[in-house]
Amino acid sequence: MIYLDNAATTFPKPQIVTDTVLDYLTNCGASPGRGGYDSAMQSSEMLFECQENIASLLSLPTPERIVFTKNATEAINAAIFGIIKDGDEIIISSMEHNAVMRSAHECTKRGAKLKIAHANEKGKVSPESIEKLISDKTKLICVIHSSNVSGTINDIHSVARIAKKHNVYTLFDLSQSAGIIPINARDFDMLAFSGHKGLFGIMGTGCLYVREGINIKPLLYGGTGSYSESARMPDFFPDIFHAGTVNAPGIASLSEGVKFIMHEGVYEKEKEITRYMYDLLSEIPNIIIPGERDRTSAISVVLKGFDSVGIAEKLNSLGICVRAGLHCAPLAHRTLGTITTGTVRFSPGFFTEKSDVEFVVSSLKKIVEN
Amino acid sequence: MIYLDNAATTFPKPQIVTDTVLDYLTNCGASPGRGGYDSAMQSSEMLFECQENIASLLSLPTPERIVFTKNATEAINAAIFGIIKDGDEIIISSMEHNAVMRSAHECTKRGAKLKIAHANEKGKVSPESIEKLISDKTKLICVIHSSNVSGTINDIHSVARIAKKHNVYTLFDLSQSAGIIPINARDFDMLAFSGHKGLFGIMGTGCLYVREGINIKPLLYGGTGSYSESARMPDFFPDIFHAGTVNAPGIASLSEGVKFIMHEGVYEKEKEITRYMYDLLSEIPNIIIPGERDRTSAISVVLKGFDSVGIAEKLNSLGICVRAGLHCAPLAHRTLGTITTGTVRFSPGFFTEKSDVEFVVSSLKKIVEN
Repeated sequence: MIYLDNAATTFPKPQIVTDTVLDYLTNCGASPGRGGYDSAMQSSEMLFECQENIASLLSLPTPERIVFTKNATEAINAAIFGIIKDGDEIIISSMEHNAVMRSAHECTKRGAKLKIAHANEKGKVSPESIEKLISDKTKLICVIHSSNVSGTINDIHSVARIAKKHNVYTLFDLSQSAGIIPINARDFDMLAFSGHKGLFGIMGTGCLYVREGINIKPLLYGGTGSYSESARMPDFFPDIFHAGTVNAPGIASLSEGVKFIMHEGVYEKEKEITRYMYDLLSEIPNIIIPGERDRTSAISVVLKGFDSVGIAEKLNSLGICVRAGLHCAPLAHRTLGTITTGTVRFSPGFFTEKSDVEFVVSSLKKIVEN
Repeated sequence: MIYLDNAATTFPKPQIVTDTVLDYLTNCGASPGRGGYDSAMQSSEMLFECQENIASLLSLPTPERIVFTKNATEAINAAIFGIIKDGDEIIISSMEHNAVMRSAHECTKRGAKLKIAHANEKGKVSPESIEKLISDKTKLICVIHSSNVSGTINDIHSVARIAKKHNVYTLFDLSQSAGIIPINARDFDMLAFSGHKGLFGIMGTGCLYVREGINIKPLLYGGTGSYSESARMPDFFPDIFHAGTVNAPGIASLSEGVKFIMHEGVYEKEKEITRYMYDLLSEIPNIIIPGERDRTSAISVVLKGFDSVGIAEKLNSLGICVRAGLHCAPLAHRTLGTITTGTVRFSPGFFTEKSDVEFVVSSLKKIVEN
């Protein structure tokens, strides 16, 4: 099997990640943040270590303001619904995933206004096009760092500077970039990302980071093990977003995944294999590859005259795992001009070998030629 | 180590549960409901099988209306905020966990009215006391099936009958009862429960069940792999509540945990060990054990003249894991008369041996005597 759906979830995971899950389930097993017995305290320490590892990877100043969610979608919902009120305006880019798009659309049903900043045909949104949409009612700007369709990397540092100038908050979706490319997020307001993609945690993990000084409402209400006698959620981090039992084995896996990235030169390998695949795919006749050569590891293609789903099925019969369709990002496909065809997405990862890429591209060539 | 915090999360898990997680992470690894390649399809089938296993265990008629959440708290939030609107009334019992209490309190900030049906000093809420609170504005009644503090089992079948008579929906919290005592939930409206407690899944799993015919709003908005081109969430189950990547290894573990319960005579063993521990604890001088003898496996105690946290610390030094305090359920502690002292909670599980119970009780006796 050649797995090229790493933009959905990475597979395989580093051995240490799987080993850690097994170790947690076998030797600890406790829920963090509640009990005072040894394994519960050990679990709490593990959670804090994971926050510190992530803070270290992304240069975040306050580890305790990283909270664990079940996926990036929950983190995005928490940020958007925690900030946007009736009468506010929210600006999103036209490359957003449905996690942002559907949440922002729901905001409009709750009395907010949605504005969309249109990216160019490569999937890049210009900070200036965002600035033009800002009004005195604008509360939040959401931009995907790197597209899950075209891998296009947006200049979020410029977006952050513009937002700051206008006193508007930003939420950046790092689901396709965290662990894939180096990120210095020290000055950012809010970040949402998956734990189970580039960061090598297992499924069931995601994170929200909220800069100190930002007032935000909780998304979920429930037991936190803190201020239990109060009918309200605690207002401090991470408890404000940790209602109910957290995914402790998942957080343990994420912590090890992040450490793996810091020690294993992952960024270079990811870049190299993506570029290698992009270049080989480019040579196929009648192929369209939306986006730029310099990208994260999502390479969506359209093969003129071929149905995307049909191509994916043929590749599957050869043991090649790729995803066809709209990838939960219709706005992005509209921007890239692929909304009617969908695309076949190849997303190699750290463990993808060049020989795998060569086999896949030659198989694709044969499908197209026959 | 003697682990007696099974009411928080069960430990250890059955071997097959841990093995299944490892197998999933090593041999499948795909996210369900999106891709069409073999391992993604296998993952989708696994998810459906888990729904079928849970439906079978609880006699639920429509497996597809069981959705996977990160914990019971998310399920409870989804049910309450999905149903309650401005102007509605919500009735909860005075034995509810903060998952219900804090969510219901948040409802009052959004324009709903909260009424609390008071349980007796054993922690039992009478269906009649609930009926007295019903008005023509009552939309939802939330009752915990079994208390996480006193193990008291409520007569939810009678509550369901009364609610039906008045056209009011019910939400029952089965977090402490699912997998611990037999439940026929065929006629219930909505159920929320943990996956990682009595059902033996790993942390990061919970479930919400919503009976066919109940209209409910989604809690989270995002990609579902279905109707991707729409800005709205799909209105069918389970997609309406499956925004973003689900915890596939967790769901795989839960599926095996549920099968384990159906084949291993768990109910009898749970009942026996709980009763054994209750009876031995009862013999300790100056001990108060709120609740009834017939209960699920939470046994909270107050030892007159002793601080609960101090007792738990002493037990921890002997390798015994118990939880002291309010257990995220201050309403329940008020009802039981233990709000000022808190309690030390012993929650044995399927894997607890009688010899463990004997050692714990004799250790507790020594602490009290010295």
